[in-house]
Amino acid sequence: MSLGEFDLISRYFKQSNTQITDGVEVGIGDDCAILELPEGYQLAVTTDSLVCGVHFFEDVCPYRLGYKSLAVNLSDLAAMGADPKWVSLALTLPIVDEKWLSEFCRGFFELALKYNVRLIGGDTTKGPLSITVSAKGVVARHKALLRSRAQVDDLICVSGVLGDGGLGLACKTGKQALNNPTPFIDALELTEPRNDLGKLLINYASSCIDISDGLIQDLKHILDASLCSAEIEVNKLPLSAAMKHEISCKTIVQKQALNYALSGGDDYELLFTIKQEHYLQFCAQYPDAQVTVIGKVIADNQQKVRFTEAGQTVNLQLAGWDHFK
Amino acid sequence: MSLGEFDLISRYFKQSNTQITDGVEVGIGDDCAILELPEGYQLAVTTDSLVCGVHFFEDVCPYRLGYKSLAVNLSDLAAMGADPKWVSLALTLPIVDEKWLSEFCRGFFELALKYNVRLIGGDTTKGPLSITVSAKGVVARHKALLRSRAQVDDLICVSGVLGDGGLGLACKTGKQALNNPTPFIDALELTEPRNDLGKLLINYASSCIDISDGLIQDLKHILDASLCSAEIEVNKLPLSAAMKHEISCKTIVQKQALNYALSGGDDYELLFTIKQEHYLQFCAQYPDAQVTVIGKVIADNQQKVRFTEAGQTVNLQLAGWDHFK
Repeated sequence: MSLGEFDLISRYFKQSNTQITDGVEVGIGDDCAILELPEGYQLAVTTDSLVCGVHFFEDVCPYRLGYKSLAVNLSDLAAMGADPKWVSLALTLPIVDEKWLSEFCRGFFELALKYNVRLIGGDTTKGPLSITVSAKGVVARHKALLRSRAQVDDLICVSGVLGDGGLGLACKTGKQALNNPTPFIDALELTEPRNDLGKLLINYASSCIDISDGLIQDLKHILDASLCSAEIEVNKLPLSAAMKHEISCKTIVQKQALNYALSGGDDYELLFTIKQEHYLQFCAQYPDAQVTVIGKVIADNQQKVRFTEAGQTVNLQLAGWDHFK
Repeated sequence: MSLGEFDLISRYFKQSNTQITDGVEVGIGDDCAILELPEGYQLAVTTDSLVCGVHFFEDVCPYRLGYKSLAVNLSDLAAMGADPKWVSLALTLPIVDEKWLSEFCRGFFELALKYNVRLIGGDTTKGPLSITVSAKGVVARHKALLRSRAQVDDLICVSGVLGDGGLGLACKTGKQALNNPTPFIDALELTEPRNDLGKLLINYASSCIDISDGLIQDLKHILDASLCSAEIEVNKLPLSAAMKHEISCKTIVQKQALNYALSGGDDYELLFTIKQEHYLQFCAQYPDAQVTVIGKVIADNQQKVRFTEAGQTVNLQLAGWDHFK
């Protein structure tokens, strides 16, 4: 059965999550969406593309692909402390496979509904499989968490655990064999964006970024923008129970785990800097927040990352992910 | 020479048109752009993808591709009467060809500068060549031109001329041979978005759409949304001097010209409905506006288009462009 472009939009997208009406004057079905921002708020906009063969494998579960294509965008909003509101979806499909499309939409809209995000437009075209999502959120005026405001002596923190996404990717590509790769592949494909945390951090953190390309590379973006350096205590990097289990089974060694945690990418945790006193206030206010102190900002404007292990400087060779290198 | 993703962003995009600062609190270089809307305005958002082999040929002049990928998006803003402000660009490239990229950017930013549009973010990834642009504009609250507000007895008007873009495409694909295809290929590739007109129409037109898929198909979107029908006087369809010249030379016949004008697509003119009295006021106020009355809205809720020629109903078989049919 072959559906036309307009049937496709109507069947899968137009009626999708119209129960979310907040700020939407015109949704799908006109030349543009028309959106209303609440008073005193600014617009936060991010765009991320996922390309078949680069960001995902051709045989990826479409439910997970739909989920992740939204999750990585929500994660960028989380990193600014913005409240996600609206999303546009540009979908390029080689063929119309209704089963595939229906599963893709199930993943996409499940996450959209969870964060109260409304699909307000986009484009469907024929071509090599790729997905470009543009997510929009709102943030109180001048309150967005920038990369450029880290201060010397701020603590450096991360949410959640590190390295599972990177290890998941290594399992998928066959670079790493494990008895039970499931938790790592789940971490890779069912990323949980940290929007709830991002919104809380707005009143506490000095700078913030989400970890998509690996902790070190993303930390360097903060250092470059804030003109300072960082000291990271490698033993403080939070690892998952699953990762610790693999280390204890000796299927991976400690150094590999460290490598995944520092440069594996695909973690989508928040990496932020915070004044010590604000950190204490934050912990008192939100004792259940899963946040770990992993280092501190130091006064060296060469934007370097120094690693320490039990107080001693250690030398690590790592690199992030760069599409064109 | 191989440039990394961040070098690429920095060299071609970050420093691009930062002289346009209006409403931009944070531009390229953080997780999101942060934008400020003027008070009393709403946000208009549109997204369009251009895929190699579908929307353009692999050997297309990159300057023209950069230009057009923005133009088609600005055209959607024009159709709502929105003032274009900001744009995101998601670019998927098979390789980094700096000469190609520099020409692409020249076309893109030339048009952006003309309409005072600032590039505020996006994504560059490796993969089959495609471009997804998301353009954002502002429109006075509740003033956006919708498809759904056409009224019985409104005049139906178009801007500019019709059919040149469609004929240009026919020339490019070898379906049509002409002695001088240049003006038609220029019309196809160097589309002029009608943003100045769109902004004027906000106080006059009842509904509006831009003609991307062919006049008939786009008119049907208005009829569907407004629950009415239309009568189009085929002899009133505005044709360019170049098109008339081809007809007079008999390289194309009148019926073909009509076909391009009604269903060729790629014209990116504005198609709008307007009360007769508002039309007269508009013409008095803007005598130089290139606008032609081509028909009127009629009271038949079957959303049909009836064609007339010198008062007689004529039967035409036409279809628009649908990516998946």
